[in-house]
Amino acid sequence: MRRLGVFTTMMLFSVSAVWAQEKTDLNMVEKIRKEGLENSRVMDFAFYLTDVNGPRLAGSKGYIKAANWAKDELSKTGLKNAKLEPWGEFGKGWELQKSYVALTAPYYKPLNAYPKAWTAGTNGLKNAEILLVEAKDTIELEAKYKGKLKGKLLIPYRTDTLLPSFKADASRYTEEELTKMANAEPPVAPQGGRRTPNPAAMAAARVNALLKEWAESEGAVGILSYSLRGRDGTLFVQGGGSYAKDAPDSFLDIMLQAEDYLTIARLAKAGQPVKLDVDVKTLSYNDDTKGYNVIAEIPGTDPKLKDEIVMLGGHLDSWHSSTGATDNAAGCAVMMEAVRILKAIGARPRRTIRIALWGGEEQGLHGSRGYVKNHFADPATMELKPEHAKLSSYFNIDNGTGKIRGIYLQGNADVKDIFTKWLEPFHDLDAKTVTISNTGGTDHQAFDAVGLPGFQFIQDPIEYNTRTHHTSVDSYDHLIEADLKQMATIVAAFVYNAATRDEKIPRKELPKPRPATPRP
Amino acid sequence: MRRLGVFTTMMLFSVSAVWAQEKTDLNMVEKIRKEGLENSRVMDFAFYLTDVNGPRLAGSKGYIKAANWAKDELSKTGLKNAKLEPWGEFGKGWELQKSYVALTAPYYKPLNAYPKAWTAGTNGLKNAEILLVEAKDTIELEAKYKGKLKGKLLIPYRTDTLLPSFKADASRYTEEELTKMANAEPPVAPQGGRRTPNPAAMAAARVNALLKEWAESEGAVGILSYSLRGRDGTLFVQGGGSYAKDAPDSFLDIMLQAEDYLTIARLAKAGQPVKLDVDVKTLSYNDDTKGYNVIAEIPGTDPKLKDEIVMLGGHLDSWHSSTGATDNAAGCAVMMEAVRILKAIGARPRRTIRIALWGGEEQGLHGSRGYVKNHFADPATMELKPEHAKLSSYFNIDNGTGKIRGIYLQGNADVKDIFTKWLEPFHDLDAKTVTISNTGGTDHQAFDAVGLPGFQFIQDPIEYNTRTHHTSVDSYDHLIEADLKQMATIVAAFVYNAATRDEKIPRKELPKPRPATPRP
Repeated sequence: MRRLGVFTTMMLFSVSAVWAQEKTDLNMVEKIRKEGLENSRVMDFAFYLTDVNGPRLAGSKGYIKAANWAKDELSKTGLKNAKLEPWGEFGKGWELQKSYVALTAPYYKPLNAYPKAWTAGTNGLKNAEILLVEAKDTIELEAKYKGKLKGKLLIPYRTDTLLPSFKADASRYTEEELTKMANAEPPVAPQGGRRTPNPAAMAAARVNALLKEWAESEGAVGILSYSLRGRDGTLFVQGGGSYAKDAPDSFLDIMLQAEDYLTIARLAKAGQPVKLDVDVKTLSYNDDTKGYNVIAEIPGTDPKLKDEIVMLGGHLDSWHSSTGATDNAAGCAVMMEAVRILKAIGARPRRTIRIALWGGEEQGLHGSRGYVKNHFADPATMELKPEHAKLSSYFNIDNGTGKIRGIYLQGNADVKDIFTKWLEPFHDLDAKTVTISNTGGTDHQAFDAVGLPGFQFIQDPIEYNTRTHHTSVDSYDHLIEADLKQMATIVAAFVYNAATRDEKIPRKELPKPRPATPRP
Repeated sequence: MRRLGVFTTMMLFSVSAVWAQEKTDLNMVEKIRKEGLENSRVMDFAFYLTDVNGPRLAGSKGYIKAANWAKDELSKTGLKNAKLEPWGEFGKGWELQKSYVALTAPYYKPLNAYPKAWTAGTNGLKNAEILLVEAKDTIELEAKYKGKLKGKLLIPYRTDTLLPSFKADASRYTEEELTKMANAEPPVAPQGGRRTPNPAAMAAARVNALLKEWAESEGAVGILSYSLRGRDGTLFVQGGGSYAKDAPDSFLDIMLQAEDYLTIARLAKAGQPVKLDVDVKTLSYNDDTKGYNVIAEIPGTDPKLKDEIVMLGGHLDSWHSSTGATDNAAGCAVMMEAVRILKAIGARPRRTIRIALWGGEEQGLHGSRGYVKNHFADPATMELKPEHAKLSSYFNIDNGTGKIRGIYLQGNADVKDIFTKWLEPFHDLDAKTVTISNTGGTDHQAFDAVGLPGFQFIQDPIEYNTRTHHTSVDSYDHLIEADLKQMATIVAAFVYNAATRDEKIPRKELPKPRPATPRP
């Protein structure tokens, strides 16, 4: 309780201090709105990033192609110093070159299927029998299956069933939900220690790991997977193994739509012979194992402030079974459009505005963490580089296609009144909520981890967690044009405000060094 | 108004007459409930019909396999006279033997795709360029595309976009909706004359027909299709041409998921070269071009009434891109379970109970219409066969997996109080609504068309029209066990009641002969 008391006093002080000072240039905001809502190019950017470029898996040629396109487009838009900047070592590139998967017994059916990333192929067409694997632990696995996997396609038995979808895929935040966010308590720092692991899940993971090891050494053809989110023909597909430079390709692991996986598992369980044709070809390459971010700038114009930086960004990499439209071409297109808007209206920001489209986010925020370590500080040591003092703030978009409803403060109470003021001209576009809460899972956390003000906006969830995120249908048609325009307009205004106010954005206390602990 | 007045007077008379007489054997109903809810085999039947058998396209070997399984299973259950009964000439059988469809330029992506039924293959793997076809009428089509289709894969341009799914796929009827049905006005006989055709739709149909004709003669590889219902990886796939015995295989027409179709169309429209690998093999056969229904009976036990018949049924055929679980393995499994329940409890119906699993429903209620014509009357002449006088009623299930909420009277007001009484013991299972309204689109209409009492139940819609009906995900996992048990229990009670009451079910006036008019 004492801690909260201190916090509240601090907030009251900062409220009055900031409220009096914070001014926004409403004339410029009006120009931003007009350009962003009436002359938008955000859907062009999205089209090139998704349909034209294709998947942008980290480390792949598709990623580099998209990064080069974005760099060139940012230059054409008038930004300076556009470049691909390496952030460190990523690993190997991988691409799918062929995938044909079909049920051939008890009847023919081509299957909607996608191999996980960084897995190996089949070395030609194989017709393989299904082997149902049912083992509660490695002892049972050994007793029942060791030495019996050659030439088989493995399917771990699962007893899940699909439930009818009584909840819509798409939704927008209600007033009630937004009010709850606005009134949230400040986040408590994460407790130390680890979560107690679930023994059943750990046993299943051990069974799975051992099964894959034997499958490879005994010469099985592949393993089948599914996710309960992968229903109705949607496939939820991520990586199936290591992307480390020297790692061999992982054992073939194919995602099926839930309906097909469960049918095959039931047939096998009932003793019906089941066979599949599988022909998968993949390619790994180590031509360039570095990872890259795309960086470009609108230089600042105030001699005293132009060395200071306001950043905006989102990750450019995607998973591979579609074109990553909502995750996260949406965020990239919005950020590219935000800087285009500022150039188009001839904005002259006092600080330098720097856009970053990150690589390797899906594998652990690698691009932004690498960038932060190279430019600002290593969270393990918290030794600050000179640029650490120069960054005002970083704004991120990575929650799909839903319009901005407000912003998360990540516990930084001193910013509340500034952002409240900045949102005022956008209440009519449904953006008004400022919440003290944290949100996680994306690149603003790399900044937050070294005590820099990194923020992510509150976005309407639309179909993100239900349908598009990491799936085979995350494509252009799941984008909502009106929402992307609104987002770019608000981001442009935020970035402009941050780049022109007298002070940098207030910071939280510096975090303590957090030495990286090796995984057990 | 006069007509309605007469109707109301009739209803009032029949209400008092029937209400006094209608008695149900609640002891038997209780036995039916216990057997149906506690010892159900409905999911076993569904498993064999779907997972084990596979697709049951009319005229295919898959259909015949399922029909033979159902016949044998009905015999095992203790029914008599189980047989495959031909209903007339259907046409050719067709099956898919291979389908591999993948985008190869501008990047590789295996596509979730399914050829329409009765279309031809590609005669091996073809790598074909996409040709976007944009023509408002046949004049524009001729000017732009004639002679340019060789080796191309055609994609008609469409400007549709997907909208986010703010409505849940699954729903149940609300009390308000059910009350509205209960209070509905009697249906008015359909007005004569044709609907005014939509000129734009007619022009598009002419363009499409001519395009397919040229595509075939010029040697195009295939045409791509999609449906707005075919989103999120669900494919909505029906037939692509004639199944007439002597018809050549139709031009290859492949359904894509909406996301992929629209991506390809946008890329082509933007002038980006797009190529696909297509390898489709289909097989047509004319071994036996007759169509078959599955028929079996529980013979009646009352010497005076055992020649009379109560029928129950649903169509057994399905479309081909999944295993037709909700359309209509659900209805077949429920009907098979309903007769199993009656056998299991040793029911001794006075009238003969006859189950019919119909063929060729998806192509125009062929199986039930053929059966009605062979046994009862031809609606074109309305000359009645002797069996016409013997049929009490027919009960149908064909609206998916949703439980029974009541029954449609098809305008037969004299049955209202009978069915109201029969539903009384099932109010606790949410079935209570009797509506005077019509429902259409399935096999009870074949009986109704010759003045025989044919009924279909009101079922909760669940995911039927939104996700499963005629799609690639219409599989076992979209069935709801509790709902199927409830349905079978209620159907068993209805059929038992109809087979034991003193009188046959009241009939509407006989319809006038409706000579078949050849299509223009």
